Amino acid sequence: MAGSRCKPPDAVVWPQNAEQVSRLAALCYGHGLPIIPFGTGTGLEGGVCAVQGGVCINLTMMDRILELNPEDFSVVVEPGVTHRALNTHLRASGLWFPVDPGADASLCGMAATRASGTNAVRYGTMRDNVLNLEVVLPDGRLLHTAGQGRHFRKSAAGYNLTGLFVGSEGTLGLITAATLRLHPTPEATVVATCAFPTVQAAVDSTVHILQAAVPVARIEFLDDVMMDACNKYSKLNYSVAPTLFFEFHGTKEALAEQVQRAEEITQNNGAFHFSWAKEAEERRQLWAARHNAWYSALALRPGSKGYSTDVCVPISRLPEILVQAKEDLKASGITGAIVGHVGDGNFHCILLVDPEDPEELHRVKVFAEQLGRRALALHGTCTGEHGIGLGKRHLLQEEVGAVGVQTMRQLKAVLDPKGLMNPGKVL
Amino acid sequence: MAGSRCKPPDAVVWPQNAEQVSRLAALCYGHGLPIIPFGTGTGLEGGVCAVQGGVCINLTMMDRILELNPEDFSVVVEPGVTHRALNTHLRASGLWFPVDPGADASLCGMAATRASGTNAVRYGTMRDNVLNLEVVLPDGRLLHTAGQGRHFRKSAAGYNLTGLFVGSEGTLGLITAATLRLHPTPEATVVATCAFPTVQAAVDSTVHILQAAVPVARIEFLDDVMMDACNKYSKLNYSVAPTLFFEFHGTKEALAEQVQRAEEITQNNGAFHFSWAKEAEERRQLWAARHNAWYSALALRPGSKGYSTDVCVPISRLPEILVQAKEDLKASGITGAIVGHVGDGNFHCILLVDPEDPEELHRVKVFAEQLGRRALALHGTCTGEHGIGLGKRHLLQEEVGAVGVQTMRQLKAVLDPKGLMNPGKVL
Ligand SMILES: Cc1cc2nc3c(=O)[nH]c(=O)nc-3n(C[C@H](O)[C@H](O)[C@H](O)COP(=O)(O)OP(=O)(O)OC[C@H]3O[C@@H](n4cnc5c(N)ncnc54)[C@H](O)[C@@H]3O)c2cc1C
Ligand SMILES: Cc1cc2nc3c(=O)[nH]c(=O)nc-3n(C[C@H](O)[C@H](O)[C@H](O)COP(=O)(O)OP(=O)(O)OC[C@H]3O[C@@H](n4cnc5c(N)ncnc54)[C@H](O)[C@@H]3O)c2cc1C
Repeated sequence: MAGSRCKPPDAVVWPQNAEQVSRLAALCYGHGLPIIPFGTGTGLEGGVCAVQGGVCINLTMMDRILELNPEDFSVVVEPGVTHRALNTHLRASGLWFPVDPGADASLCGMAATRASGTNAVRYGTMRDNVLNLEVVLPDGRLLHTAGQGRHFRKSAAGYNLTGLFVGSEGTLGLITAATLRLHPTPEATVVATCAFPTVQAAVDSTVHILQAAVPVARIEFLDDVMMDACNKYSKLNYSVAPTLFFEFHGTKEALAEQVQRAEEITQNNGAFHFSWAKEAEERRQLWAARHNAWYSALALRPGSKGYSTDVCVPISRLPEILVQAKEDLKASGITGAIVGHVGDGNFHCILLVDPEDPEELHRVKVFAEQLGRRALALHGTCTGEHGIGLGKRHLLQEEVGAVGVQTMRQLKAVLDPKGLMNPGKVL
Repeated sequence: MAGSRCKPPDAVVWPQNAEQVSRLAALCYGHGLPIIPFGTGTGLEGGVCAVQGGVCINLTMMDRILELNPEDFSVVVEPGVTHRALNTHLRASGLWFPVDPGADASLCGMAATRASGTNAVRYGTMRDNVLNLEVVLPDGRLLHTAGQGRHFRKSAAGYNLTGLFVGSEGTLGLITAATLRLHPTPEATVVATCAFPTVQAAVDSTVHILQAAVPVARIEFLDDVMMDACNKYSKLNYSVAPTLFFEFHGTKEALAEQVQRAEEITQNNGAFHFSWAKEAEERRQLWAARHNAWYSALALRPGSKGYSTDVCVPISRLPEILVQAKEDLKASGITGAIVGHVGDGNFHCILLVDPEDPEELHRVKVFAEQLGRRALALHGTCTGEHGIGLGKRHLLQEEVGAVGVQTMRQLKAVLDPKGLMNPGKVL
């Protein structure tokens, strides 16, 4: 719900290399000007709003892939490289990068927001897949969080600076390069879908599949409203019911077994229909429908804007919060479709709102906040992957408590003593 | 090489709960007394030496398992619980905790050193398996790094405080509870060993197995000297040659395929002998030999003490550094056996030294430092899993550079303003 407060910066600059970013930062530091790092602007929490004016540093022109080490499963990218561009570049290498937010975001922006996506249940989030960052600090100094040029898989050397900058949302420094961990391209892929009588049955299936250690690569939940929207938007003909979308990666033999286990488990939980697609085109169509979820939801009510909630809870608490969210939606008269990275306990209500209707905007805001508090009460988080940005700062305080926020403020104060990096965000 | 400088603390206390730890910390803070957190004392870098005297807070009496959430794959443990105690407790639950340093260390000590072990190639290190920490800060305040009671799988809420405290080696606060991520117990397990004509062939096999996405759970390298030591100590009869020990986890069908692929790959790389063990007793014996590597090496020269190096490099650089390390060992006349978590690029030279011989101690120190620098030159780290402690502080500076160390010092200064937490370590 950040949109309403958005303010443009006083200036936008397009540096071409880290040296220029460093000089720009030093200049702003000297003049006390706020800096707002800009990746591709797909962030959903108002992270690039210039609430105090200042200089927006747009990093899209730094778009080189600097180094690929296939034997070491690593790559170094500049901040203008998006996850799709990287995967296109990698196509012939036998490697890929799995973190895939729905939008084609920049990889450094994804590091900045600790982004995630549909493959996280198997391959982890940006937290797990960033090996090193080059960061321009507020005063212009260049930091290599794991040491210059280093790309080892693990280390116990000193404080984990990489982990501190991943998820810092531009409030501690500007990321000018990221070293990422790559994965071998799966030999084969199968996709399946499956409809359920209830939300509970879909989530129970998810827990049972994880408990059985089926190494599912993707397991996505769509509620009846979302399925209806996808059918309409992507011209498909799925049951309008709680549904799971699966993807399995492995060798042909391993896949057959994974699919069979998943099918057994879903059937034990009362699934009505388990259908699978091995052909590339069929698979592509199916995931295109999933990836178009946001636009499908928006199309339910032309002219409306979307706002996405982003709570994440321990997986055993998912059924109750999902059921409650659907009741709250009904009670508040808001149109909302639900889609979730259910293997991680993370789901989104895509809420449709008429931007000209302040009363409706208010209702959406109340709903989103209530959902955030419900997640907190169930030992969850107010944001699984989108970040805090502008609108969730008060929820962050409730989530981590007074000492947590004090500690974060101390870190901010010591690394950005003039408070110039993306002010007004996170804390 | 920390042993020589070790100094006892002025006092040792055994608190029974976090409240007492908090009061102790506040007391020490008020009186300006150094605090040294003590887990199980198995650390290899002198982390519990009281270089400036002070109070050792021994946490072994806090040994309860506070909460098990099987559906959420999480558990909360106090600092006296070791990884073996936890796995014994979990036996009936269908879950386990995979991080397994050779010694039966405390889980909070393992979090403090960012420990790892033989399963990291598949299940990650403490970095990846700690969900939340309860920490007593130097002034006695209680911090929950991810918020009190929270145990979600992922979050993008604010700075990653959990990641900052994992690997901080007692220099930022006392960990009084850890929430850990559990994994489903594998349905079946197969173990295999395989000897190679050269170190290069063993490492090439490792890279090819990872590239082929065989989900190997353990892949450990032992050099000829280590194999000889294991044969003697564990009364075995393996080839005295560079050897890989494998473990595979999965369903029975999946295992057969994994083993077959690994066998093919190792044979393509000239392996002489691939033998596998499905029976529990045979498997146990084999891994007991690996887990006794430290004691086997010590037995090569009775009366000697061991010091373990711990470098980690990008995997493509492993053959050259291993070959070089063996040459350096020979040239310096030191007895050393090599064992490594080769899937992560991490290996140890277990160096045998007569503690009464200052000249030999010096040679060992020179060798270890040279090896650390070789790893740094190959884009590696001076410590993959043991930490910096006392003896590698100068290597840390070379590894992360001036700005890296400045940044770490800033974090230390703001979180521990009086410099009382485990002084003289890491920085
Ligand atoms: C349709 C749609 C679907 C989405 N699906 C997902 C999803 O599945 N999972 C998910 O995690 N997110 C998702 N998102 C959100 C968004 O794509 C992510 O938050 C993404 O990480 C933002 O990257 P960006 O480059 O666009 O960052 P921006 O929007 O440009 O910036 C986001 C924040 O990061 C900071 N930042 C950006 N680049 C840098 C840098 N180089 N250095 C320092 N700070 C920087 C900015 O200052 C800002 O605070 C979705 C968004 C849309 C529109
Ligand atoms: C035979 C042998 C084999 C080993 N194999 C491995 C291996 O394979 N992988 C590996 O990673 N390590 C290995 N180790 C090293 C050691 O087991 C690890 O470093 C372990 O994590 C230390 O845990 P501990 O509880 O013994 O910590 P301690 O030795 O008690 O302390 C280590 C450091 O952590 C701090 N610390 C301990 N507990 C806390 C706490 N609760 N709060 C804050 N700070 C704390 C201490 O102050 C100290 O700086 C091995 C050691 C031995 C002897």
